Amino acid sequence: MTTDPFPKEAAVEVTVPAGTFRVGGIAKGSGMIEPMLATMLAVVTTDAGVEPALLQRALTTAADDTFNAISVDGECSTNDSLFALANGTSGVVITEKDLDVLVEALRRVCEALAIGIVRGGEGATKLVTIDVSGAQSNAEAKKTARAIANSLLVKTAVHGADPNWGRLVAVAGRAGVAFDLERARVQVGDVELFAGGRPYDERAPEASVHLQGTDVLLRVDLGTGGSGRARMWTCDLSADYVKINAEYRT
Amino acid sequence: MTTDPFPKEAAVEVTVPAGTFRVGGIAKGSGMIEPMLATMLAVVTTDAGVEPALLQRALTTAADDTFNAISVDGECSTNDSLFALANGTSGVVITEKDLDVLVEALRRVCEALAIGIVRGGEGATKLVTIDVSGAQSNAEAKKTARAIANSLLVKTAVHGADPNWGRLVAVAGRAGVAFDLERARVQVGDVELFAGGRPYDERAPEASVHLQGTDVLLRVDLGTGGSGRARMWTCDLSADYVKINAEYRT
Repeated sequence: MTTDPFPKEAAVEVTVPAGTFRVGGIAKGSGMIEPMLATMLAVVTTDAGVEPALLQRALTTAADDTFNAISVDGECSTNDSLFALANGTSGVVITEKDLDVLVEALRRVCEALAIGIVRGGEGATKLVTIDVSGAQSNAEAKKTARAIANSLLVKTAVHGADPNWGRLVAVAGRAGVAFDLERARVQVGDVELFAGGRPYDERAPEASVHLQGTDVLLRVDLGTGGSGRARMWTCDLSADYVKINAEYRT
Repeated sequence: MTTDPFPKEAAVEVTVPAGTFRVGGIAKGSGMIEPMLATMLAVVTTDAGVEPALLQRALTTAADDTFNAISVDGECSTNDSLFALANGTSGVVITEKDLDVLVEALRRVCEALAIGIVRGGEGATKLVTIDVSGAQSNAEAKKTARAIANSLLVKTAVHGADPNWGRLVAVAGRAGVAFDLERARVQVGDVELFAGGRPYDERAPEASVHLQGTDVLLRVDLGTGGSGRARMWTCDLSADYVKINAEYRT
């Protein structure tokens, strides 16, 4: 049991032909979060038996879409660390052929921990999931998602529940990747606010209702027709973040 | 005369062998400022006669160290624009041989306007000048200066007058350029807080006094022994910035 209001514990159980094993994890972190990993500390354990080199590969892959896809404030500290430990007590030995299963189990645990860190970010009141699609490559999609995740204007708009499609379009347009304004689309929750080169401002009230919740989904299609996509998680930027970090003393 | 509490007007008079000419300028801007230029609008005029192509070259050069060296919030809007107009009424014609003089006159005017924009940034209470030296190249120095200028932890620390050398070292270390911690130096105003791989925390009170003013100087030497250097200007990040941009409605 945790007393953390934003739990950063997760576990999954996985059955493979050789038997059943478990993957669990715990993490801490609040500000100074944009892995490259920082004051973030996370430990993932499994009772499977896994050779260190294989475990490292699986962990690196799992971290890429989880811990390396979150940003509280775009900052990276010097001791961000993610550890994986395997003790083999389940009697299940994971080998190369089970790699995908192990990666998926690690990914699920790491995603839950990573989201917990963002949800508990300094001053955060909302978890924001950013889905970028229609990019020329996954890397271009991630670059755009990261720019959105770190945009002060997006983060303050979300904080104020302002369905500001213009700020999303502006960040996508300056992210330094291929972008076609005429074919781009912006959705807040399930509400499409911009498509075909024009806004749908009459839908703003509905989008604002979505933004007033604690779980916000922002979707941006870059309109290039490419299949590149990426997901990142961030939080809103509040006056409390400023207070916490302006008043903190070395 | 301006009623702007943060004036964005400037003029200089320059004498060359052919006579005297003037360069003046006005600008507007407050948030959404990190040129690539955004809601920032600036017009610079001169009574010298200058061919458009030469004027464009001189303006681009002058903008690089001025308008392209400021950041309020790391955001770029879609209509950032800097115009230069030359009407020749002074009778002085500027040619290739006078290019350096014209650039310097434009640079002085643009710098004054650019600093005015930062000083009047949304929610800003301090102008922060960031000098980075000891880099392998000017480009690496600018990359580091830009990372510092857009660091929420640096901007909130300055807001709280916290002499947090650690946040400056951390940003320099993650800026993606050559950096030698053992030879790096951090100064706040004239107070050296970090050098030779160790902090001088006993000097923190003196640095804090400097940070309580409205004009803050942060100097970081990357310790590589290189001659690369760059200057950028930014402002602190206050709770008012968040309020202005969370409450603003589309």
